[in-house]
Amino acid sequence: MEFSEHIKTANVEDVVLQQPLHPPSRGTLCITGHHLLFSHREEQDSSGQVLLLLRNIDAIEKSVENLSGYLGPFTNVVNSKRASGSSGTIIIKCKDLFVLQLDIPGMEQCLNIAQSIETLSCLDCVADMYPFFYRPCDAIFCDQWGLSNPEKHYTEMEELHERWRLSTVNRDYSVCVSYPTAVIVPKEISDDTLKKVAKFRQGGRFPVLCYYHRKNGMVIMRSGQPLTGANRKRCKEDERLLQAVIEDSDKGYIIDMRSAQQAQQARMTGGGFESKSCYNSWRRLHRHMERGKTLQESLIKLVEACADKSHNMGRWLSKLENSKWLSHVQTALSTAGLLVECLERDGHSVLIHDSDGIDSTLLVSTLAQLIMDPSCRTLEGFLGLLEREFVQAGHPFQQRCAHSAFSHARLQQESPVFLLMLDCVWQIWRQFPLALGFSEALLLRLATEAYASNYGTFLSNSDMERHAAQVKDKTQCLFRALLKPREREQYTNQLYEHTELAIWPSVHPQSLQLWRGFFLRWTQQTRHLEEVQQEIRNMVIESGKTALSF
Amino acid sequence: MEFSEHIKTANVEDVVLQQPLHPPSRGTLCITGHHLLFSHREEQDSSGQVLLLLRNIDAIEKSVENLSGYLGPFTNVVNSKRASGSSGTIIIKCKDLFVLQLDIPGMEQCLNIAQSIETLSCLDCVADMYPFFYRPCDAIFCDQWGLSNPEKHYTEMEELHERWRLSTVNRDYSVCVSYPTAVIVPKEISDDTLKKVAKFRQGGRFPVLCYYHRKNGMVIMRSGQPLTGANRKRCKEDERLLQAVIEDSDKGYIIDMRSAQQAQQARMTGGGFESKSCYNSWRRLHRHMERGKTLQESLIKLVEACADKSHNMGRWLSKLENSKWLSHVQTALSTAGLLVECLERDGHSVLIHDSDGIDSTLLVSTLAQLIMDPSCRTLEGFLGLLEREFVQAGHPFQQRCAHSAFSHARLQQESPVFLLMLDCVWQIWRQFPLALGFSEALLLRLATEAYASNYGTFLSNSDMERHAAQVKDKTQCLFRALLKPREREQYTNQLYEHTELAIWPSVHPQSLQLWRGFFLRWTQQTRHLEEVQQEIRNMVIESGKTALSF
Repeated sequence: MEFSEHIKTANVEDVVLQQPLHPPSRGTLCITGHHLLFSHREEQDSSGQVLLLLRNIDAIEKSVENLSGYLGPFTNVVNSKRASGSSGTIIIKCKDLFVLQLDIPGMEQCLNIAQSIETLSCLDCVADMYPFFYRPCDAIFCDQWGLSNPEKHYTEMEELHERWRLSTVNRDYSVCVSYPTAVIVPKEISDDTLKKVAKFRQGGRFPVLCYYHRKNGMVIMRSGQPLTGANRKRCKEDERLLQAVIEDSDKGYIIDMRSAQQAQQARMTGGGFESKSCYNSWRRLHRHMERGKTLQESLIKLVEACADKSHNMGRWLSKLENSKWLSHVQTALSTAGLLVECLERDGHSVLIHDSDGIDSTLLVSTLAQLIMDPSCRTLEGFLGLLEREFVQAGHPFQQRCAHSAFSHARLQQESPVFLLMLDCVWQIWRQFPLALGFSEALLLRLATEAYASNYGTFLSNSDMERHAAQVKDKTQCLFRALLKPREREQYTNQLYEHTELAIWPSVHPQSLQLWRGFFLRWTQQTRHLEEVQQEIRNMVIESGKTALSF
Repeated sequence: MEFSEHIKTANVEDVVLQQPLHPPSRGTLCITGHHLLFSHREEQDSSGQVLLLLRNIDAIEKSVENLSGYLGPFTNVVNSKRASGSSGTIIIKCKDLFVLQLDIPGMEQCLNIAQSIETLSCLDCVADMYPFFYRPCDAIFCDQWGLSNPEKHYTEMEELHERWRLSTVNRDYSVCVSYPTAVIVPKEISDDTLKKVAKFRQGGRFPVLCYYHRKNGMVIMRSGQPLTGANRKRCKEDERLLQAVIEDSDKGYIIDMRSAQQAQQARMTGGGFESKSCYNSWRRLHRHMERGKTLQESLIKLVEACADKSHNMGRWLSKLENSKWLSHVQTALSTAGLLVECLERDGHSVLIHDSDGIDSTLLVSTLAQLIMDPSCRTLEGFLGLLEREFVQAGHPFQQRCAHSAFSHARLQQESPVFLLMLDCVWQIWRQFPLALGFSEALLLRLATEAYASNYGTFLSNSDMERHAAQVKDKTQCLFRALLKPREREQYTNQLYEHTELAIWPSVHPQSLQLWRGFFLRWTQQTRHLEEVQQEIRNMVIESGKTALSF
């Protein structure tokens, strides 16, 4: 694609930038294929610049006015001569909730800039996106992309080898479009069986192992819903696979993240659930979790409430309640807690799914692993967990993160599942400030990167799509970048102390808080909290602890 | 008073104690004149003890049951033989929100214990209270009591001496019962004039200086409302006093912490406000702040909401909103902000009062000083500020803190004004984590001490009452105790960095939070936050910063 086609005005002088916590400043605005760059007139160094990925822009609002004061009937018919005395204003609302305003001299220039932003911020084709153009000075392409892969993961987990095997039945993505090329399944289940099971599970997502609990040998499996349909269809292979999971153990749990009623209704559209009669060693628990549009609307309401400038405390608390975001946080954490209870306290394996198994299923399995497994709580461990449970497991980032809370576009497949997961992790981090090896800054960084990034990690919707787009060959990996010494220092929790225990978050409403660091991140107070983090970092360095030793 | 009269059962064996975050434990319960002591059976050292000031107990709930299972019609008629097989339960709810349960064998013993607690926790006579009996091993009685006094304060403030004088017109408390013996007034105003003004101000609280702003020479004055009454009575001396405050400056501000309507209505009961025509150099601003019963009811609702065990997020947020506590926090902070704006930004002196000038007046003047004056933000500075603006200025602690959120007694004069002030300070502390020299632990300690204490600092309702009860001769001073090295270390903010600037708290509803450290202090998460504080303290010590150098 020729980006220049979409850039009629590349440079504008004398633009006034207004952004939170800064006085207005005058300078030059520049639009490129992927960036908006504002350079302050006074300052020459890069600290005087604002560089914004166009992809980060969720919505823009433009208004033009003729400085003569006469707003004629044809103000939209731009005549470069007539427009010379006029100006325009663009308000830019970013996916990371940053809002800035540009006052641009010249109506035509303003409209051109707005037009460029509107087009270039919503590119559909993955290959046009910035990660394919980003070349940091320390880029290494020969290196392995990502932190691990299913093969390596399996090889390292020796305790798995007796009962579990690595299947490459999906090596050409023909069995399940959203799975990676290799998955871990019970040893006794053949690839042919898996193919049959895949036909019985939504999106081909047959049950695969996602977590092995070393303390008791129990596992978390995840899948799509069984396609029993109105006729209560059975699939002997599916039943056999699940039986193989629990082997000679007396039972397992299925956590279905829909209400019993929703699961029943799903049968009408070809879906369904595991009936007691066919899966008699499994006990089904229903925990309804919102997904999709409901979650997206909750985010929109919350962000709208956070931006409310009224000084009315009652109104704020009522809007906060009305957004229901904290209820979703609570449900996600308590469902993860339920899973841990089944697996760690009760000592049984668990299968989790909702309908398609690519949203709340991944959210809950991620949180449960963080709660149970100390190796997921280090910086590397957590990034590895996200790589396995979100990126490789097929969370459709491109669809879910196409827009954030400001867009006026009609909702399609957007849903802040990943953001909700980060919020839940933040709640755990706040309740156990010593137990996680990474800082709030990492969660904020990930929240931004999921929506707009220099890196290829969150591109596309699945391993298959990333493979087709050659993401691993042509872009940089975010997770590897975050582990380089300088970034690592910034994202390490200096107070981290390893604990083997499960960290059970309190899910009482009183224990859960608005994640102000994210939702109010562009306000004064967040800046002060950053000062505290910096101060603690300094002290750790002074006190001789090596920040990198974690 | 003979405490033993009220103790029919002093010791009970085999009592089971249940308290939050601990497993139940069995041991011996002991009641003394001022304490409840529970000693665990297994542990011999004092860590196995729970020692509770009876004064800290806000409410008790008792229930007795006969173990035979038959609850006869005369269960209240205690017969020691019949009751031998029965038991009782006492739930004790403390003013610092701690709740514990005692299961006591023997119905009679249980009722005796309950009776003792009910009587001894509500002693009216100051001289019977525990501070008169408390003798720490490092007690020093010859030392000065308190951190400072008005005389010393005036002597130290040399910049005051030109225009202000120390008046001892109240040396025998005959002019104003709630003022200390010495106050600072304009130099040109004689003691005779003050006596006349005192008759024109509620409670005899004529306008006195409470803060001198070194940066611009402007002051905060505080007083009771003027007693203009329905007939719009004037007092030339009062007008002259206020004129002397602003001298040749063009104007001053009066912040009246009642709505304009309330101020009008106050005239019907003999009160009133400073009319424009009589005080034409003063501009009156009305900012309504709740006090008294409304504030107490708000606290009760909030604590009730915090104890709600339901898992419904919407219900919690709705109850939080409904308690209105955060609205009161917001109003207090924004009124203090208004004061600072008048004084520091606009550069004019300010007189503040509500009706009686002993509640919200003190709250707002305290917060304003904390915001403006760096010397009030150190540990000593803050305690000195509380001593001047609450203790010496006549906040009636004994009445206001007689009961906290649990008591079933009819509300009398209770009102959590001091607690609200501490909450506001916590909000500032959270927004400016480096700007205050003291820690959250200090605020928590003060919140507890105001309601029940070993020390005499918060006894009685005024300097006059403390003098009559010989508090300064016979009790220990809390503020001095908090500055001893061990305590000081515990209450110092290790991250403190001095700043000369005013610290303007954000009062947007989104910026204010529930003070979880206090209101949810007996829950798991608070314990983890304490771990963080401890960890930071350790690092500071390791890094070679001297905690005591602030």
